[in-house]
Order: sequence, then C-alpha cells, then structure tokens
Amino acid sequence: MAKFITLEGIEGSGKTTNLRIISRILKDKKIKYIETKEPGGSLLGKKLRKFLLDPKTKISSEAELLLMLADRKNHVEELIIPSLQRDTWVISDRFMDSSYAYQGGGRKININTIKSFTKFLNFPKPDLTLLFDLPVKLALERAKIRSQLDRFEKEEVKFHNRIRKVYLDLAKKNKGRIKIIDASKDIKSVSAKVTEEINNLFNGKT
Amino acid sequence: MAKFITLEGIEGSGKTTNLRIISRILKDKKIKYIETKEPGGSLLGKKLRKFLLDPKTKISSEAELLLMLADRKNHVEELIIPSLQRDTWVISDRFMDSSYAYQGGGRKININTIKSFTKFLNFPKPDLTLLFDLPVKLALERAKIRSQLDRFEKEEVKFHNRIRKVYLDLAKKNKGRIKIIDASKDIKSVSAKVTEEINNLFNGKT
Repeated sequence: MAKFITLEGIEGSGKTTNLRIISRILKDKKIKYIETKEPGGSLLGKKLRKFLLDPKTKISSEAELLLMLADRKNHVEELIIPSLQRDTWVISDRFMDSSYAYQGGGRKININTIKSFTKFLNFPKPDLTLLFDLPVKLALERAKIRSQLDRFEKEEVKFHNRIRKVYLDLAKKNKGRIKIIDASKDIKSVSAKVTEEINNLFNGKT
Repeated sequence: MAKFITLEGIEGSGKTTNLRIISRILKDKKIKYIETKEPGGSLLGKKLRKFLLDPKTKISSEAELLLMLADRKNHVEELIIPSLQRDTWVISDRFMDSSYAYQGGGRKININTIKSFTKFLNFPKPDLTLLFDLPVKLALERAKIRSQLDRFEKEEVKFHNRIRKVYLDLAKKNKGRIKIIDASKDIKSVSAKVTEEINNLFNGKT
C-alpha cells in the first residue's frame, strides 16, 4: 500500500534537499510517488502561499491558522487522498505537525485548540514523519544564504526556538511515526540517516 | 458611540438595496459611516471572494467555513474595529450569522463547532442585525433576475430553506439584537420598517 511521508523542521533545516533524496530512493525502487508541499499544496493554496509568505502581509495568528488549515483540507482532498488511493506514494514538505509547531509554538495559539480543529478536519496521519532538527542559529544562517527571508524566516530567534521545542515534544509523544534526523551534521551523514529511515519503512520496521 | 449594524438574509432578500437606505439615513443625520460586506471585507477577502463565489470552485464545506472565518477575522481587525474606534459606524452586508446559516444550516456543519470557532476568534457582536426574511422561491426568482447565479445561489431550494430556518432560529434566540424584516412586501413597506429600526437604534430602543 502507498505510504504518506512528511518532512518537518524549522526553516533552513534541509527539508527540500532531503525530499530529493527520498524521491531518488523511490525512483530507484520504481515506486510511483508525488512530491508536494504546504502551504500551497492545493489550487487555492498556491494563491494563499504567496500571501502567507510575503513579509508585507499583516494577518492575525488566528487567521493565519485558519488559512493554513483550509489549504491543508483542500490539499488532502484534492491531492493526498486521491494519490494514495491510486497507490501513489506522497512526500509532503510540511503537514499537520507544522501547525502545532508554527501556530502553536511560534504564534502561541493553544495546542488543544489546534487539536480540536484538526480533529474536525479529519486529516490522515502520515506513515512516517522525518523531523530535521538542528540549532536555530545554524538553521537561520543556512536559510539566509539560500535566499531572501520570507515572513516566517524573518521572525526572531525566540520564535524559532519555540517552534523547535514543539517539534521535539511532538517527536517524543509520537515515537513510532516521527523520526528525528540530526540536521546539524554534514549532508552525507544526514542523507545516510534518511535512507536508513526510508528503508525501515519498506522493511516494515516503522 | 459608533454602532455596528449587520444585514442578513438569503440570496435575493434585498440586503444591498436596504444597505443604501440605511446609508441615506446616516448621511442625513451627518453620521460618519462605512459600508462593507462579507466575504471580501478584508484585503485577503477580496482575493478569496472571487474564489468562494465562483460556481466552478470545488471545495469542502469545512475548508469553506475556515476561509469565511479567516476573511472575517481580517475584516474585523483591518476595518471593523478600527472604524468603530474612530467613531465611524459600520454597516456590513453579512457577518457572523451568515456562517451559522450557510455553513451550519446550508452545509450541515455542527452549530456547536461553528460556535467554538467564533469564540476562539473573539468577534464583536453587532448592535443591530436586520434579517431580511422571505420565502426561498420568491428570493431566488429575484436573485435570478438580478444577475448570473453564484456558487451559493446555484444550490437547490432545500439548501436555502435550511439557511432560512437557521436565520429564523437565531432571530428567536437573539430578540434584542436581530430584527426580522418581512422582505416579501413591497420596497416601500420594507424601507419604512428599516427606517423604523434604525430610528429605534438612535432612540436607544434597540
């Protein structure tokens, strides 16, 4: 059966690079898969993504949460569920853990409120979530080298530290699903660890 | 102190025409006011409005609710609250009762879920809500004459009947705030009733 894999982590944690590594593994195994991302995984989301990431956008934390969840609901219904039903694997750069981390940790919205929203929206649970973890300072340096900072990347270090903390808490509470990858290491070690986790998924160890 | 007035009702109930009547009264009394509407009262909302009303849009009821609420949150923060604080009256074509009626009644989302969302979003309560009520068949005939039907207007009669029912229930439970206007009558009688309700608001009878 097709698997649903999500990649999580603060900005500059190397999700995009590692998404390519996972794609390569699936390709080599001749497995049908799609790559996708949030925000912006749905048709509506592509319109919202620009708005949500634009540093000039002024929006309350609550409205931000609602838009992220609306995008996710469309993403799930338009793309994720239909793909899995056609036996196509789905690799998503961010999914529900991002809402807990960013809107819960970062924006300080009550975690139970977010929980009740996600329950109402009936989101599927990923089979495997790779959490790319590294110190905030190092991650932001990497994000800065890569490109202009977006609205989230421009937030202060404390904001990103709160996000990292929620991610690590989630990993502790969901040991079966969430695997922490030490993203402070060199790319070779990181990709070896990612490969190992994907192989575990194939061997039924996850 | 500036007042917040909302207009509610099914499609074709004459909200837009009556909004102009209210504007005229306020103008005559030399009161500062703004006219606004939902969806589309916020900057983001203007983008969403086209998407939400387009008959070609495919979206789940849950995502529709979230987008409507996100638009409203922005609308409240960008426009409604700042206007009231500057002592400017606000007349809005639709506000929170529309979510109960359309997403609750029309789309059958649990009313308590919508209630908990609106509580989280901390929306201001209107000082006066005029509910333009008339039989669905008559209202849809009027809407059809006016222009091409949008995504909501294209729904079946049963859908609009459920909306009307929730509106009437809300009016029963909020007698102080919501005044029912019989919109099946001729425009002269309707506008006389609207004028009376606005005058009551001035005289502190509402």
